[in-house]
Amino acid sequence: MAPSRRKAFINVDLGEGYGNYKCGPDEELIPMIDHANVACGYHAGDPLRMAESVRLCKKHGVKVGAHPGLPDILGFGRREMKLSPEEHTANVIYQVGALKGFLDRVGVPLHHVKPHGILYGMMCRDIDVCRAVMDGIPRGVKVFGLAGTYMEQVAGEMGIEFVAEFYGDVKYRADGSLVIDRVKQPWEIEDVKKHVRQQLEESAVTAVTGEVVGLPTKDYAISLCCHSDSPGCVEIVKAVKAVVNEVNAANGFVDDEAA
Amino acid sequence: MAPSRRKAFINVDLGEGYGNYKCGPDEELIPMIDHANVACGYHAGDPLRMAESVRLCKKHGVKVGAHPGLPDILGFGRREMKLSPEEHTANVIYQVGALKGFLDRVGVPLHHVKPHGILYGMMCRDIDVCRAVMDGIPRGVKVFGLAGTYMEQVAGEMGIEFVAEFYGDVKYRADGSLVIDRVKQPWEIEDVKKHVRQQLEESAVTAVTGEVVGLPTKDYAISLCCHSDSPGCVEIVKAVKAVVNEVNAANGFVDDEAA
Amino acid sequence: MAPSRRKAFINVDLGEGYGNYKCGPDEELIPMIDHANVACGYHAGDPLRMAESVRLCKKHGVKVGAHPGLPDILGFGRREMKLSPEEHTANVIYQVGALKGFLDRVGVPLHHVKPHGILYGMMCRDIDVCRAVMDGIPRGVKVFGLAGTYMEQVAGEMGIEFVAEFYGDVKYRADGSLVIDRVKQPWEIEDVKKHVRQQLEESAVTAVTGEVVGLPTKDYAISLCCHSDSPGCVEIVKAVKAVVNEVNAANGFVDDEAA
Amino acid sequence: MAPSRRKAFINVDLGEGYGNYKCGPDEELIPMIDHANVACGYHAGDPLRMAESVRLCKKHGVKVGAHPGLPDILGFGRREMKLSPEEHTANVIYQVGALKGFLDRVGVPLHHVKPHGILYGMMCRDIDVCRAVMDGIPRGVKVFGLAGTYMEQVAGEMGIEFVAEFYGDVKYRADGSLVIDRVKQPWEIEDVKKHVRQQLEESAVTAVTGEVVGLPTKDYAISLCCHSDSPGCVEIVKAVKAVVNEVNAANGFVDDEAA
Repeated sequence: MAPSRRKAFINVDLGEGYGNYKCGPDEELIPMIDHANVACGYHAGDPLRMAESVRLCKKHGVKVGAHPGLPDILGFGRREMKLSPEEHTANVIYQVGALKGFLDRVGVPLHHVKPHGILYGMMCRDIDVCRAVMDGIPRGVKVFGLAGTYMEQVAGEMGIEFVAEFYGDVKYRADGSLVIDRVKQPWEIEDVKKHVRQQLEESAVTAVTGEVVGLPTKDYAISLCCHSDSPGCVEIVKAVKAVVNEVNAANGFVDDEAA
Repeated sequence: MAPSRRKAFINVDLGEGYGNYKCGPDEELIPMIDHANVACGYHAGDPLRMAESVRLCKKHGVKVGAHPGLPDILGFGRREMKLSPEEHTANVIYQVGALKGFLDRVGVPLHHVKPHGILYGMMCRDIDVCRAVMDGIPRGVKVFGLAGTYMEQVAGEMGIEFVAEFYGDVKYRADGSLVIDRVKQPWEIEDVKKHVRQQLEESAVTAVTGEVVGLPTKDYAISLCCHSDSPGCVEIVKAVKAVVNEVNAANGFVDDEAA
Repeated sequence: MAPSRRKAFINVDLGEGYGNYKCGPDEELIPMIDHANVACGYHAGDPLRMAESVRLCKKHGVKVGAHPGLPDILGFGRREMKLSPEEHTANVIYQVGALKGFLDRVGVPLHHVKPHGILYGMMCRDIDVCRAVMDGIPRGVKVFGLAGTYMEQVAGEMGIEFVAEFYGDVKYRADGSLVIDRVKQPWEIEDVKKHVRQQLEESAVTAVTGEVVGLPTKDYAISLCCHSDSPGCVEIVKAVKAVVNEVNAANGFVDDEAA
Repeated sequence: MAPSRRKAFINVDLGEGYGNYKCGPDEELIPMIDHANVACGYHAGDPLRMAESVRLCKKHGVKVGAHPGLPDILGFGRREMKLSPEEHTANVIYQVGALKGFLDRVGVPLHHVKPHGILYGMMCRDIDVCRAVMDGIPRGVKVFGLAGTYMEQVAGEMGIEFVAEFYGDVKYRADGSLVIDRVKQPWEIEDVKKHVRQQLEESAVTAVTGEVVGLPTKDYAISLCCHSDSPGCVEIVKAVKAVVNEVNAANGFVDDEAA
């Protein structure tokens, strides 16, 4: 498959602690990334932490997106729940609105919405869930998702700008879907680099069962996702950044081009 | 004390159910009132209900305010909690932002913020809590509160437009503070009328201990508060509306003048 | 199908309010029933209410069972959630233990466990969920469930005494499964009576699609379930009690025989 | 003040993670201690974790107590809340019952109750809260608390066996009360040792303001408390254990004497 010729960016799910509970070294990650997906209090995150995440992103010029999830702190938004379409839509409006409250206050625009965890997975394979969630995204805000799934299709239908994600620290199944563990597993750094390079240079990935799977991303902008709750996430993001910078340079993009 | 010469309005705390749990006949109340204080999910309310409350208010031309509370569904926001000022501010930004998400979607402006329950009481008597909560209110949005308390003072300090509340279904102590019960007690309709008339015509109230207490509201706009969780709230609001209309007419205001 | 020849009892799901939110006239229902299924705080119920439900049941000689549900107050335990078997087991141990705390205090034994809402439905059709939930039931405690499903089978495997339920205010599908609505729908009292009589006298029911479906209950004890959140539940339970008493009498059972 | 002549034990608050959120290296701490205070899901802890904590304690012969807290995961039970006495009692019955569910299953007795965080502090200084909480403790179960406060007095009144706590990683004020931080601060190991030795050998402590304060523990059994959420808690517990062993040996107690 032909290599991507668009500049690749890096996004990280963050702000995912809760009260006294920490989750991920956000202060170390934010300076390295382009796009932050900030948890909105449903699967993780709390108001104090959202204020702090927005402050740090503004300071480092990182674009801020909402990271809405299922209403399940105990399950970290990684346990499937059957909600009505109306509930999904309202949950997204609520969470995105809450984050926008913090953004409006400091004059930072809402850049995108990136659904979290199992909700993202449900959107990829259930068009009703996908439409319901996307229906909650405010106009003019992009959505981050997996190309080749209902996420791409519904974004198109609804006129929402789609950004195709690759994954630095998540494995794929042979059908192109993501393996979402309840708790993130460790990665070898060399495996991360190979995984990212394959996605960026070949628009393909080697599935957990060994097949090489095409990941067609057409002309969509590309952002490479990492997770702040992955063990060793700082080293993972550094490695991803090194590969992303190298591939961007080979494609003629400079590092400080706008995300 | 001299009677108020400003037009009086009626506001109701509503949208205070939670999932399957109902709380108050919102559909019957909304057509009768001027200002709705919509619960934002912390002490009551949920995303589906917020969407529905906003829809009904828009339909009936009722101005919508946020009704943020302490994070305590079980206690209905009527159990005091000691939070840091930063937590209070962030909680208000979060809840108001969430409601604004629903308002933005249907093009209805956020009119005011009316803190709920014991948080309102804490603001009246603790200037630090009061400043912290008010600090979370977006610019250009009014605050509803009790004149003669820190709420009036801090609104002034911060340049927030203040609307003075009277109460249709809440009693006062001799120091002018409100008696906030965990569960609302029933009222005789005639007592409600007398209670409201006294506040509107004399800017005063008879406290639970019998003293007549002045309620100086200066030149602030006035809105009379009722609760959707009071037993017999539809009859209460009808009675309050009758008195309000009568007093407004006597003062030369017409019923359909803008809230 | 041959009529049941065992004495039939009546059970009700109750204690299902939450904080200020009421759900069902428990005080009126408890004197009419044999078995109470007391909500344990996960889908509904709270500690104060559990204490009060236990007190009322003791006063009226009603046997008390635990009514554990999915951890979802907002969804009232009627939204399916995918939990691991270990989570299901631990959730039941937790909830049943909590209720037992209140029972131990007043010297009332735990009589049974009756899972709530969608968890009950999941047990009927998913043997892994069923085994996981049943694994959390303490020894010597009965389980209430739907005969002909995994509930009956797994109770048998695990040596748990099984009590077969009929339903006063829930409809059945043609496959014998229950139609679990998010919010209970109203019933005509005459329909309730016919529905109950058919189950008790014919061990059968007319499904929502019109077919008459056999409900084989073998020699299991029988308890007829009603819900405290059904509209008009007091009238429903009265009607069910009238039919149950009549059928029990026809079968030679007296009213005050032990539940 | 005269040194304590009773054998001293070590207790730790643990099981204080929540879902994916970890809190403290429980597996490393449990083998070193005598008494475990297991969080019960209100301020921290969840059913799966409670099952695991009980399993580990049984394996290592550690006595298990309940560690009930205020219903506030986000605030980790360290934000004061005003509850009614009935609510406090019911909350304790609920949480202790839930833990007992896990203990009953594996045949481990409930050894004690140790209230958590700000609830403990509220009991020390408010006799109504203290009585309400203690009223929820099952008969025959000890309570861990601070001597010289209402905890000691009320345990006496109610006939509950009292175990006096000293603190390895918490500072005292000059009035003998504890300084409960929202987030635990780091300690120098040498300071921990000095702090513990002073308490054990002199029944006294140097307050944060410099005064030496007597901590009269009469003839109560003594257990030294450490926290699994203190930074460096494994090293702290090791240091405390070294001092405790040394003082016990000097007092003629052997290490394996029953806790």
